[in-house]
Formats: sequence, C-alpha cells, structure tokens
Amino acid sequence: MYRTHNCGELRISDLNKEVELSGWVQKIRDKGFIMWVDLRDRYGITQLIFDQERTSNELIESAKKLNREFVINIKGSVIERKSKNSLIKTGEIEVLVTELTILNASITPPFTIEDETDGGEELRMKYRYLDIRRNPIKENIILRHKITQEVRKYLSDHSFIEVETPYLIKSTPEGARDFVVPSRMNPGEFYALPQSPQTFKQLLMVAGMDKYFQIVKCFRDEDLRADRQPEFTQIDCEMSFVQQQDILDTFENLVKNLFHNIKNIELEKFPVITYDDAIKNYGTDKPDLRYDMTFVELNNVTQHKDFNVFNKSELVVGFVIKGGNSFTRKDIDKYTEWVKRPQIGASGLAYMRMQDDGTYKSSVDKFYDQADLKKWAEVSNASTGDILFILSGEKDKVRTQLGALRVHVAETLNLKNPEDFKPLWVVDFPLLEWDEETKAYHAMHHPFTSPKLEHLSLINSDPSAVRADAYDLVLNGNEIGGGSIRIHDKKIQQKMFDCLGFTKDEAEKQFGFLMNAFEYGAPPHGGIAFGLDRLVAIMGGNEIIRDFIAFPKNNSGRDVMIDSPSSVSADQLKEINLKTTL
Amino acid sequence: MYRTHNCGELRISDLNKEVELSGWVQKIRDKGFIMWVDLRDRYGITQLIFDQERTSNELIESAKKLNREFVINIKGSVIERKSKNSLIKTGEIEVLVTELTILNASITPPFTIEDETDGGEELRMKYRYLDIRRNPIKENIILRHKITQEVRKYLSDHSFIEVETPYLIKSTPEGARDFVVPSRMNPGEFYALPQSPQTFKQLLMVAGMDKYFQIVKCFRDEDLRADRQPEFTQIDCEMSFVQQQDILDTFENLVKNLFHNIKNIELEKFPVITYDDAIKNYGTDKPDLRYDMTFVELNNVTQHKDFNVFNKSELVVGFVIKGGNSFTRKDIDKYTEWVKRPQIGASGLAYMRMQDDGTYKSSVDKFYDQADLKKWAEVSNASTGDILFILSGEKDKVRTQLGALRVHVAETLNLKNPEDFKPLWVVDFPLLEWDEETKAYHAMHHPFTSPKLEHLSLINSDPSAVRADAYDLVLNGNEIGGGSIRIHDKKIQQKMFDCLGFTKDEAEKQFGFLMNAFEYGAPPHGGIAFGLDRLVAIMGGNEIIRDFIAFPKNNSGRDVMIDSPSSVSADQLKEINLKTTL
Repeated sequence: MYRTHNCGELRISDLNKEVELSGWVQKIRDKGFIMWVDLRDRYGITQLIFDQERTSNELIESAKKLNREFVINIKGSVIERKSKNSLIKTGEIEVLVTELTILNASITPPFTIEDETDGGEELRMKYRYLDIRRNPIKENIILRHKITQEVRKYLSDHSFIEVETPYLIKSTPEGARDFVVPSRMNPGEFYALPQSPQTFKQLLMVAGMDKYFQIVKCFRDEDLRADRQPEFTQIDCEMSFVQQQDILDTFENLVKNLFHNIKNIELEKFPVITYDDAIKNYGTDKPDLRYDMTFVELNNVTQHKDFNVFNKSELVVGFVIKGGNSFTRKDIDKYTEWVKRPQIGASGLAYMRMQDDGTYKSSVDKFYDQADLKKWAEVSNASTGDILFILSGEKDKVRTQLGALRVHVAETLNLKNPEDFKPLWVVDFPLLEWDEETKAYHAMHHPFTSPKLEHLSLINSDPSAVRADAYDLVLNGNEIGGGSIRIHDKKIQQKMFDCLGFTKDEAEKQFGFLMNAFEYGAPPHGGIAFGLDRLVAIMGGNEIIRDFIAFPKNNSGRDVMIDSPSSVSADQLKEINLKTTL
Repeated sequence: MYRTHNCGELRISDLNKEVELSGWVQKIRDKGFIMWVDLRDRYGITQLIFDQERTSNELIESAKKLNREFVINIKGSVIERKSKNSLIKTGEIEVLVTELTILNASITPPFTIEDETDGGEELRMKYRYLDIRRNPIKENIILRHKITQEVRKYLSDHSFIEVETPYLIKSTPEGARDFVVPSRMNPGEFYALPQSPQTFKQLLMVAGMDKYFQIVKCFRDEDLRADRQPEFTQIDCEMSFVQQQDILDTFENLVKNLFHNIKNIELEKFPVITYDDAIKNYGTDKPDLRYDMTFVELNNVTQHKDFNVFNKSELVVGFVIKGGNSFTRKDIDKYTEWVKRPQIGASGLAYMRMQDDGTYKSSVDKFYDQADLKKWAEVSNASTGDILFILSGEKDKVRTQLGALRVHVAETLNLKNPEDFKPLWVVDFPLLEWDEETKAYHAMHHPFTSPKLEHLSLINSDPSAVRADAYDLVLNGNEIGGGSIRIHDKKIQQKMFDCLGFTKDEAEKQFGFLMNAFEYGAPPHGGIAFGLDRLVAIMGGNEIIRDFIAFPKNNSGRDVMIDSPSSVSADQLKEINLKTTL
C-alpha cells in the first residue's frame, strides 16, 4: 500500500500523525523559502508543505522538480494550517513532508485539470482519462454508480431478481437497425446485439421468474442525433400477474426512493395524463411540467370574425406566459422568427397582450375588438401583465409547433430549473402509428404491447383508435422510462403481427420461439425500461448524457480515444467468411 | 394485481383469510368427490382444494378442465389441512377455492417440470423457459443474483465504483480471437466486442478513479471446449496505489464475505503457494486442496538400482493414497490404463503397497528390496494400508500426467465434496511462456502484467526465468480469479511489447492510447478478474456452468431456443458493405 490515508481524509483530529499519501500534483505554489503542493486523489485534496526551516535542502530540491499531474508518494506529519480553508474537508491541516518519491512523471496535459477546463469537446474525448480526473466528470460517474446501486438495492428488496440475458442474439429487422456479429463457427450466419432484452424478459416471465430486472447495455445502429449513443444502458424490468396500475405504483416508488436517497428530495405523487391529453395540452407526449403554459383551444372564440387565417384553421391554440406583457416588440419578433424556421414551420405567431391598464392589445386587432379579446383572456385564464401566444393550422402540426414553442419560451425565460424535478406518467398510448412513407401501421412501442382488451375489436375496423396498456414515465420533458402490459396470448400476438404486416413465415422465423413459449402457460405480465444514461444526466442536473458515460462515442459512433472502429486484417475477415464491397 | 399473496407465503396464522392466488398447476389429484391442485409460483407451492360438499358443481366442472402448467387465478379461503406436509413452508394450510379463472392454458410440456426431469440437455435448452421453471435451475439463477448483489455491496462498501466500460471497442489480434462488429457509419471499419475491459480499467486508474469494479459480459470467439461460452461474465476489479499483497487481502476478504453471507461458511486464511511449488507439488497451477496426495519426488531413492525406466527419467514422482492398499489388482489396472490413454500419455504406472503386515509390495519388486521400499515409504510419509503411485519421465510432462492422475483418483474415490471449499492463492507466475508453434514468447497472463522489478534485468538474458506480480485465486481445482500488478511505466510497457515481438507500429496502432495515457501520470495499479459463471457454479455445488446461466449457448455457440446465429438479409449485408465469401 502506498498510503496510510487518502487525500480527502485527514482532519484536525489527526494532528501530529505520521502519514503516507499518494496522488497527483494539482497545484504548486513556490514562494522560494516555502512551497505548497496540493495533492489530489479521487477523495479530495491535501495540502503539502515544504519549508526551508523544517525541510532538508535535498527534499526541497526534489520538490522543485515536481510539475502538474506528477504522481507522487510522500511521508510526513500532519500539522495545523496557518490560514485555514473552510471550502475543503482537509482545510484545517497540511502535511509537513519528510520524504518524497516521484512514482510517475507527467508531460503537460493538453487541457487544465480543473472544474472549468480550457479543453474543447474533441480534446476532452481524446484524453478522456484526463477529463475524468476533473471533479464534474468524476462526480457524474460516481453519481451513476450510486444510482445503479440504489436501483439494484430497491429492486432486490422488492423480490426482483437480476438475470443476465445474452448479448449475442438474433437479428430482427423490425424496429431500429441491429448491429450484427458474424459467427465464425457457423459460417454465413450472424448474431445480433440486443436493442433491448424484450423477448428474453418476457420468456423469463413464462419461465416463472415473476419479477426480473437487469441493468444492461443495449445497441442501436441508428444515424446518431446529437447526444445519442450507439450503445446505451437500460434499467430493464418485468413483472408477472400485474395490471398497469401495479407497475406504475412499483416504479413510481422506485423513482421516489432514488430521489430520496440520492438527492434528499421528496417527490409528490406523480400526475397521470393520457397520451391524448398530453398532446392536447402540451403538444408533446413528454411534457415538461416544471412550468405551466398549458394549451388553450381558442376555436370557439376566434372563428366568428373575418380573420381567414383562423377561420380556415382546424385548430387555433395558444398558451399564456405569465408576465409576458413585458416582452418588447423585438422579443416577440424573435419568437415569431423562431416559429417560422423550417424546423418548426409555423406561418406566423399571433399574440395578445394583457396590458397594465386592463385593455388588450393583439397582433390581430384589425379583426377582433376588446370584447372578443376579453373572451380570449377569460378562456385562457390570462391576467393583467400576461401575454397569450397563438398558433393556428392543421391540428396535429399546430400542436407540435406550439409544443416546441412552449419549450423554447421556457428556455429563454430560464424556467427549466435543473434542480426542480417534475415527473409524470403518460398513459393510454395509441397501439399503432400510421407511417406515411411505408403506408402501413407500425407498433408505437413494439409488437408485444397489449391493446386495451376493450379496444380489441377495433383493430381491424379503426386501427388508429386502438389504445394500448402502454405508459411512459416523463421527467422534465424527457422520456426516462417506458413500458406496457404485454400480450400473453398467442392468438392476440398473431393478430398483432398480421396487423403489422408480418407474413406468417416472417413472424414464425423471427418470433416463433416467443409464440411457442406462449403455448406453455404464459402468465399475464408487463414491464418497463428506463434509460439510465438520461436518468442519471437529469438527476445530475445536466442534460448532456455524454458527460455521464465514462467512455462515450461521438456523433459518428467513434471512440476517438482508442480510435475505434478501425480496419481489421484480411485474415480476420477471411476467418469469418466475409469481404468488404468497398 | 392478480393476487393477494404468492404461493409460498400462507401459513397457519393466515387461517380463514380470504385470499387470491395466481400460478401454475403443478399437480392434480382427483379423487372424484374431492380434488387437490398444487399451485406453483417462484416462491413455493400452495395446495388448493375443491370438494363436493363445499364447492359448487360448476366450479368443480371447471377445475376438471385444468391440466399441468395451466396458469390460473383463484379466490378462496385459507383452511387447515387434514394431513400436513412438513416439507414445504405452506404445508399446514390449503385454500378452499371459491372462484377459478384460467388465465392461460398450456399444451403438454416436452419434459416434466420437476426437480429431476426426463428432459435431455438439447430439449431443455430449446425450451429453456420451461427448464427455468424447475427448482434446481431457478435456484441457480437466484443464487447468481444473490452473489452479484453481495459482490456489489461489498465492493461499494469498500469505496469501489462500478463503471460501465464500452462494449463496442477495438480489435486487438493479441490474445484470443475477437468477435467483430461491422460499423455501417464508418464503412469498412469494425468494432470488436471486449475479451475483457482490461485497457479501460487501466485507463480508469490513470483517470484517478482509484478503485473500480464492474460485473460485465466478455466475449471470446474460441472453438468451444465443453462448458465454455462465447459470452461469459467477469467480476472485473482494479485498484491504484497498491502492491500485490493489498490486492490479495482485499479480494480474499471479498470471497470470505461471500461465503459467509451466501453459504454461512467461514473460510480460513487462504494458503499462498508459488506457481513453481504448485507445479512441483500438484502438477498443476490450479491444485484442488480438498484432498492431499501431494507429490513426492523420488529420484534420490529410486535411481541407485538397475531399473532403467527410473534411471533414465528426469523425474520420478508419486503420491500416497491413504488406505489405497485396499485397491484390487483390477483397480490398479484401471488406473494404469487411464494414465496410458493418449490424452495423458504416460508409459505406465508403478506402485508400492504398504501392506498390513508392515511389508512392502511394489510393481517393481524385481529391482528394489524391502530396505529400498522402506525408504520410499519414509520419504513419502506413507503408512500401513496406503498405496504409493509413481510415474516417471521428462519433468514437465510427468508432473502434468501425475497431476491429472491425482484429480482422477480423487474423482473415483469421491474426494471432491462439492460442499467443501478450499481456496488458495497461486502467486509468482512466469511472465512469459514459450510457444513451440510460433517459436516465440507469449505473455502468460497478458502484455500489461508487471514483471517483478528485481527480475527486470533478466527479460533479455533469460526470459523464462522472469517471474511476474501475477496471481490466481484457485478454488477446488478451478481458477476462479486471476490478476496482476500492471506495468504503469511507458518504457517498461514498450520493452514488454518488444519482447513479445510487437513492432513499434503494431504496438502503437493497438495500444498507443494506453501508452500515451502512461505519459500523463499513471499511478501504480493492479487488479483481478473473477469468472462469475464458474464462481457461481462452484458455490452452487455443481460444476456445469450452463446450469447457472439463464440462456446459455451450446458447444457450437448456438442458442437453440431462439435459433441463433442465423442468416441476415442481403440488404442488411449491403448496408454494412459486406458480402459473404461462401
């Protein structure tokens, strides 16, 4: 052992102890006759002191050779500091060094190892092992560890069994694209890496495992949007003999428990909102409830006049911004430009100010009088000093546009407090989703999701009306978990595959093992999966998930530190019976 | 919720309670006027009763439709059993059923869902979800969960942080064969699945993470020997600022803690044996210490006579079997045949009986008199009633042969008690291993293992004499963990790569990132990795690791349940710029 204590451990009560420490040189202050070195390890910083009066010349000479990030080992005695530092736990003491050994030198790091670094993203990723030395990243990784430990403890205490499911599984073209793994021992055949352990966890329910969980890597070969990773981690859970409410209760408690134990925050009962209401009220199925700005539908009070833009719109809808009358003309112009960007695609933004003198002023004053506007204010519950933003158009589109605007306004007004946590359940998702491109229905969650049994008869006649026993857990505008009650009846599962356009052969080839399993006594079951990366990031108060992953990949799926992916030798390819077509 | 209690929960104290249960029909006993159904779930079995006096005809009618493995839901009241069953926890009560719902029917399972099943290996694997319903397999999977929970708790309590390292990494032809994963976004390039997180955990030490662990899947594309899996699980650990002894202490305590908490067994201090002594005394680097039969070298007392077989042998070596004089001639012939099989390759087996009358009888009486044999008995510490088995030949070969015979004798004599646990450390492994095939030295553990610093100067002059700070944890004849102090000095690491025949370019291309990292203040560090599958199997008292993996693969690397690997579509291959050469 190269130490008697770590660098965060010594206190005033350790005065006069002979100690041995090891760590990295964080900072050197050399006053000539006296020299201080901040020694750092994972646990903290301890100040070392060398001075001419009490330290040998030889020792001072070798201390002068130190530089940032050198790894050293010292022996010395704990003394009281003259000027104490109340910001760090070891701030009352320092160690008067009597022996110094350089365990490893360091060349100058490419960026400063400080909480605020001068290193850009690409450089930090290339030297991730230096980036992790920085407190913010180190703390993120420790937070991740604590969260997974708590999750495991909670679930184990509630009779869940963690079961490892295989990583080398089978490619199923449904869903996102699989990463495939050529099999050398089975020439011409491939494994696939799991996009999730979905079918295995269902098989574990058929196997009578009753309550399963796993914290597990999953893989998707998708074109990466910003802050998406080709490999990501799920907290994957499944339970037997449950209805939807049982699952909501169990995992609401898990999340409450996490916030209590990790952040000392007591969350209130999570609101439950239907998918339809979420879309209607917030224009999204993952509403951020840290701020209000609930949608108000204005068709009734706007379509009786000569304003054609509103009259021909399927939906006129807006939301009130408290205190928004303080927006300048320029502010409003900026929002208008923002909604007109092609990514949003609105044709314009109407508004109404609730002025301090009790009168109304709108961008469409030409068409509406004060009495009309008063109605708008009443319907939307707007008060003096507020502003009402209004969009109009085709129902689905305008809701999405207004939903995006709602988030944007919250961002500009700093309403997204990262230390405020507002979880909710969104339930009753549609079972199916119409895809314009393929002119076919797709499963909104996945093909194993159970339709609400009372909607079963609609599957053929009105597929888009069928709701599923499917639910998402939304936190601060992010989906952090999603799941469903599963189909456990072979006939319904077959019907579902039919409906999704699988031929009998395709269904059999890809999922025959699951449907066979359903013939041997499958219990009713359901589950949920949480995106760990996102959950940890939100709990860490920062939404950049890369900062919560030890060794993340960039947007091209590359690990720039190890320079991967990379070419492999011709021999390697030959062994697996492949050649590139490039 | 489909139940108020699970099937292992009700006791005599629950008498008269109205309860709801769900589970699988394990067994039906139909006496006509009275009918019992054993209802099973993960937690146990509860007996249900239907009888003509207290149950409606309608209910009895539907109960008659039940069959093995049907999933049912019942309501009823808890009553006292007439004939109690003390073997199960619910054995004092039964439930008088008042409502019965069949949740899912089952066709007849392909094998019986009993502790002892009539299903063969292949059938059990194909229907693994039924196999897991059987108690022994279910208990194995629960044991695995408990062990991983304990490991995580212990390591977390000792300041280890679990860090997830990436699965999509870089192919390094050194070591076993990698599974590769074509990258679609980086055409012509490949990721590799990790054989272990070795380089990442070392980078985490450079990153100052201080104490790391991870329970993690690893992958090796090897031709599978019996009971090897292409994907397997490691408990992977690394620590900074430690010497070998610190690691042995930490992980010896982990293992002791596991046995204490999981099996209520107190292990004594683990013996530490050098690699050389293990080979000398047991003919293997993973000796099973549940039984003695330590080797005795007999050159001094056998090579003074005219027996040429011994005289020309580099080594004459044997071991004593307590009570072995009771072996019949036929027993000994069997052992002789066994060592002469080509897999073992000995030319014959000599022996000496310590007879009850105090005289000696050996297979080589022609060459040795009683005085000679008395010396053998003295040297080998043999007593009346024992037998001494002797092999001779070239040193390395004969040790391996005798080591195999030692294990074989223990098996035949039932000395391998699965409930006896004898761990030990084997230390001071050679750094390098000569490979006859490639006429080169290979790293015995891996290229990051630190040579003993006092042997550093021998690396060029006498490579095979260099010992490493490398250690294995051996339990009952199995290596369950192995590790080393790592090189943390770039120059030594380069020297090591040189020695292993890497060109500078190869070393740079494959491990440049690690050697670069060593320039920025790498701390002294070391670690260990345990094979979880094997550890769980041994603790479970059964050495077939497949029985401790939820969804194992067979010896051809196939998952026969999901039928994987399988072919993928031409489109999928095209997208990743590959075609098969078959």
